[in-house]
Amino acid sequence: MTSPASQTHLLERPSFLLSQLGFYSAQQFTNRLSQLALHPRHFGLMTHLAADEGQSQQQLADAMRIHRNVMVGLVDELEGRGLVERRRHPVDRRAYALYLTSDAHAQLTIATQLADAHDAELMQSLKPSQRRLLVRLLKEMVDANGLAPGVHPGLHEPGG
Amino acid sequence: MTSPASQTHLLERPSFLLSQLGFYSAQQFTNRLSQLALHPRHFGLMTHLAADEGQSQQQLADAMRIHRNVMVGLVDELEGRGLVERRRHPVDRRAYALYLTSDAHAQLTIATQLADAHDAELMQSLKPSQRRLLVRLLKEMVDANGLAPGVHPGLHEPGG
Repeated sequence: MTSPASQTHLLERPSFLLSQLGFYSAQQFTNRLSQLALHPRHFGLMTHLAADEGQSQQQLADAMRIHRNVMVGLVDELEGRGLVERRRHPVDRRAYALYLTSDAHAQLTIATQLADAHDAELMQSLKPSQRRLLVRLLKEMVDANGLAPGVHPGLHEPGG
Repeated sequence: MTSPASQTHLLERPSFLLSQLGFYSAQQFTNRLSQLALHPRHFGLMTHLAADEGQSQQQLADAMRIHRNVMVGLVDELEGRGLVERRRHPVDRRAYALYLTSDAHAQLTIATQLADAHDAELMQSLKPSQRRLLVRLLKEMVDANGLAPGVHPGLHEPGG
């Protein structure tokens, strides 16, 4: 009564293993960040903004390859929490330049420590050389599948 | 204006890469399976059941480490689609033994081909030796993090 389908079992499928571990990773990181009342999408946007403050909403949306409406919603959320400031762009007066507040910098420091602890727990059984190898293989896959580096595809969906 | 947090960029974090690729993998596989009007959770359950037909609902719930109420809901869904049959268990008359219908076997064969194509596309840039290595590292992480092999953690949530 065993179907041929069972010959390639889920636990050997790379796509399944990625989905399983990716879901688990997102779930655990969401739990960790909840102590700061932040969602991973906030952490993602703050991390991107911290790397280059003063850019316009449109520049950040382009860099993260997300629709400008999604970006406006995310920035609204962070502004409402006192984490992001919109200032008039010095060159383009019709645009907003985005800055993190000092509260945001403090939260980002703690959130980064939480992310480090999360990475360490998830990778606990791997040697440093295996971790580097895993990161290299995963980055290659991100590239080959046309995903934007450092951008979670769940962000593309408004409200997601 | 660069924060220390940006030093560990998201695109180097294994936990982020896993979440990013895992979300993408699930999204793409969901798209592929939609041509059969199946969700990945149906594929998961059918794959598990195909490996050992005739087991009781409770046995399958135990093997997949999901709550019996979640299992009842999943089996209801598949029974409603004519893919699973509940028969009286030959030994325990109070229990149901689960069987796949011939429709289910046919669909599972197609779904398995879709999963194979999905795996191949996702891994397109990796050599066979790199694929084997990736699977080995991911399986080690599944084990070290206490996840049930071959079971998606999203299944634990009723309706998920």
